[in-house]
Amino acid sequence: MNKISNDLFLKAVKSEPVSRIPVWYMRQAGRSQPEYRKLKEKYSLFDITHNPELCAYVTRLPVENYGVDAAILYKDIMTPLVGLGVDVEIKSSVGPIIKNPIQTLQNVEKLSELSPKRDVPYVLETIKLLTEEQLSVPLIGFGGAPFTLASYMIEGGPSKNYHKTKAMMYRDPATWYLLMDKLGKMTADYLNAQIEAGAAAVQIFDSWVGSLSRADYAEYIKPVMRKIVNNIKMSHPDVPVIMQAVASSHLLVEFRDLKVDAIGIDWRITIENARELVGAGKALQGNLDPSLLLAKEKCIEQATSILKSATKQPGFVFNLGHGVFPEVEPEMLKKLTQHVHTTSEILLKEGM
Amino acid sequence: MNKISNDLFLKAVKSEPVSRIPVWYMRQAGRSQPEYRKLKEKYSLFDITHNPELCAYVTRLPVENYGVDAAILYKDIMTPLVGLGVDVEIKSSVGPIIKNPIQTLQNVEKLSELSPKRDVPYVLETIKLLTEEQLSVPLIGFGGAPFTLASYMIEGGPSKNYHKTKAMMYRDPATWYLLMDKLGKMTADYLNAQIEAGAAAVQIFDSWVGSLSRADYAEYIKPVMRKIVNNIKMSHPDVPVIMQAVASSHLLVEFRDLKVDAIGIDWRITIENARELVGAGKALQGNLDPSLLLAKEKCIEQATSILKSATKQPGFVFNLGHGVFPEVEPEMLKKLTQHVHTTSEILLKEGM
Repeated sequence: MNKISNDLFLKAVKSEPVSRIPVWYMRQAGRSQPEYRKLKEKYSLFDITHNPELCAYVTRLPVENYGVDAAILYKDIMTPLVGLGVDVEIKSSVGPIIKNPIQTLQNVEKLSELSPKRDVPYVLETIKLLTEEQLSVPLIGFGGAPFTLASYMIEGGPSKNYHKTKAMMYRDPATWYLLMDKLGKMTADYLNAQIEAGAAAVQIFDSWVGSLSRADYAEYIKPVMRKIVNNIKMSHPDVPVIMQAVASSHLLVEFRDLKVDAIGIDWRITIENARELVGAGKALQGNLDPSLLLAKEKCIEQATSILKSATKQPGFVFNLGHGVFPEVEPEMLKKLTQHVHTTSEILLKEGM
Repeated sequence: MNKISNDLFLKAVKSEPVSRIPVWYMRQAGRSQPEYRKLKEKYSLFDITHNPELCAYVTRLPVENYGVDAAILYKDIMTPLVGLGVDVEIKSSVGPIIKNPIQTLQNVEKLSELSPKRDVPYVLETIKLLTEEQLSVPLIGFGGAPFTLASYMIEGGPSKNYHKTKAMMYRDPATWYLLMDKLGKMTADYLNAQIEAGAAAVQIFDSWVGSLSRADYAEYIKPVMRKIVNNIKMSHPDVPVIMQAVASSHLLVEFRDLKVDAIGIDWRITIENARELVGAGKALQGNLDPSLLLAKEKCIEQATSILKSATKQPGFVFNLGHGVFPEVEPEMLKKLTQHVHTTSEILLKEGM
């Protein structure tokens, strides 16, 4: 296997001391890059993700162009659902559209089990290409979490309020828990397979779970999340697991006793408050508002302010609170990466 | 003026003791009602809101059908912007579309001042019709808050992440603050005019402001909100003002020192936590997850649990954390209203 020459990300995510704060950006590979937009003129998203060479190229781009300290697999969270028999299409500027949405217990019973080698060989090949030959930084594998995946599968596409999803959860626990079980097993198998192919860490995206109250999270979601994390940790105790959800400050206390190594936070909470809520031993990842990427000076100012709080103790990865979007200029991400590197190095030296 | 025979809502919103908890529902007038859907086959939203008789009929429907303790004017928050020269159309199942979005300081400078009597006479006539003749419960007037209105005006329509809006806020303070000033004055004038026409309380909808951090709210938004509230309170010290925002638990501490009488909260926070954050002297309004309206038993169960917390001290109005949506059955809202009435009456008697 290729030697990772830059392991800052892995150290930070395990809350070990570092000489400077590592940085990567959610959705760093994709729509904001001119090279990617050129590819998209010829290929669909699934064309790219199903072709290991192309997919590895897109995954690598931000490492080369921005100097980030980790790569994240270029992939949609819906990818593995195809193996379960979900008929999904990614519509440009809309998102995933599911042609056979889940409505009944029978629909859930019919879902197959994922066999990563059979169903998503291209994912594993892409990871091997990247980690055995191409990357000098760690590769983060990732998958969607059951609530978020279920929301697409039940609503039939992106949703604002998840009414149908929650209605199933509240009204039909037998169907709900079977769906959670199946998606939980799928997610664990998918992430374990990515680790076995070479991913150095995995991130679980439960993007929309912040739409639930804390009590409902604890009752309907936490059991399956605990199972997923324990399953990965049993097979791969040394591989860091990161939990990511948007607008979920009210759930941080519930994430506290999941065996994850790091938690992604957004700008709606301060580093100080988040550290109090998640407790000792867990790293944080975040938390710049991506809208700031359109406001150069203010962006650099806010990054400095984040770093001043974050460098007070080990365990911090600089990132955004939500994904990079198409209007962001690559030059801005390059500048921000350099700023985080140099500023955090100074702050960490001063703090010693 | 017509005599209000049921003033429970006004008492509760002023944190005075009541014999049972009053209830109304955000978006109670509109899409979930068969009578309304029948009207919409013939008329557009603006057709209805511009016709005082039709608009009063739609506003009254939920009082007659569900037995709620307050009516809220049937109206879109974009309504008064027409008076400022904003070219807005409400597209069914999309939302407001603005044909001349705000991009520059010049665009903001060009915005006119609202003259309620000249620009929205139909709003004032509807209120008069309702309050002088038709309603036996208080009528709540309402308006959008500057951040939320600006988000539509700048993005050109509904948005997921408000990147352009925030970019203007972060990058171009001169333009931003002029826009806030103009929208703040408009909102205060609009709400004062509604009160003078007969509205017994007003609710300010800052629906999307929860997308900002607490620090940014304090810097960019709070000054104009303070101005609006002080302006209304100066002219009408006894008329209750309610603040409403979605997914904004992290901003509750900032609402604390605005002179509002009540604050709407959603299901992401408990009544107990919210009471701690907003402090004494402010009533709460909320906080049922509207998705529960699709799950009969669980909905009634959760309503009971809310009432058990809420009745521990005066100052609570039962409502949803977000609006009623088209799939909700009128029968469910009727049943829920009765349940809140009877259960809260028992709980309040027991507590005496």
